[in-house]
Amino acid sequence: MKKEYSPYEGIHAFPPFPVVLLTVKDNIITVGAVHIFSFDPPLYGVGIVPKRYSYKLVEEANEFVINFPTREQIEALEFCGTKSGREVDKFKKLGLTPQRGKAVETMLIKECPVNIECKVIKKIDLGGTHTWFIGEIQAVHIDEKYDASHTLVYDLQRKYRTIGEVVFTRPKAKK
Amino acid sequence: MKKEYSPYEGIHAFPPFPVVLLTVKDNIITVGAVHIFSFDPPLYGVGIVPKRYSYKLVEEANEFVINFPTREQIEALEFCGTKSGREVDKFKKLGLTPQRGKAVETMLIKECPVNIECKVIKKIDLGGTHTWFIGEIQAVHIDEKYDASHTLVYDLQRKYRTIGEVVFTRPKAKK
Repeated sequence: MKKEYSPYEGIHAFPPFPVVLLTVKDNIITVGAVHIFSFDPPLYGVGIVPKRYSYKLVEEANEFVINFPTREQIEALEFCGTKSGREVDKFKKLGLTPQRGKAVETMLIKECPVNIECKVIKKIDLGGTHTWFIGEIQAVHIDEKYDASHTLVYDLQRKYRTIGEVVFTRPKAKK
Repeated sequence: MKKEYSPYEGIHAFPPFPVVLLTVKDNIITVGAVHIFSFDPPLYGVGIVPKRYSYKLVEEANEFVINFPTREQIEALEFCGTKSGREVDKFKKLGLTPQRGKAVETMLIKECPVNIECKVIKKIDLGGTHTWFIGEIQAVHIDEKYDASHTLVYDLQRKYRTIGEVVFTRPKAKK
């Protein structure tokens, strides 16, 4: 039996989605509004609330780095999602190591297994809670031991969850 | 130890993400490029490859419905991601029940636990593989038994996975 909900309530039914640590300049912010926007050119997009400190930083720097966390990095996800870089040096506070990238000035998080360096090619303002920045991928660093299933997903009931078992592997696409 | 990958290879490291059945008019397509774009106004966005049949349908209808699948609906996900609505009536072939919506002409999938009716407010062409349609949510139908953790995530190693256990529940946000 289905019930009807208002758009404002119902939007929260969205399934658990990936959550990442985004760096811009020397700050870190937790971002759930992130997705692949195109494979060619390779584009990632991130949505940021304009009042956040990182919003101004992305506007100034025109770049960002997406760092995939592991399930051990809950403390960093929670801290970087609730504290402002205006008041605290998050790298220092969390004992994370800033690492120079290849194509951007923004610092990578050494302890994250994947770092994706992006340069902003477009800003999309829909008049909503989040403004989206589309970044073209410049360089990618992946730990040899990285397994995508070791990341976390987050849902709007405020729960971080692990990735479960494989239920189906699709056959290879025909060329 | 990290290795460097090209942007074209590295983009595939993206963590497992939600996958949905999108309906437009009386067709169904599997979509992984989907996210919340704003909470107020309530916006969902979907990315569709222009050569797909549903792309033309969304352009014509200026609306779509996002139907969240359960882990039992792998067959529908696989079928609707590989077969074209130009050649087959997917509702009929899969034994799914089209149901009238409240605010759109597009059919909802009765067997999916959540249906989100959207009207397109913007089309975003980034010159890439996917063109994005931003839809404002008009109506939401949720099954009383729906649990977001019963959905599936998909990764670019072609695997459908379940959602795993809760590792952390965030305290309630301060008002």
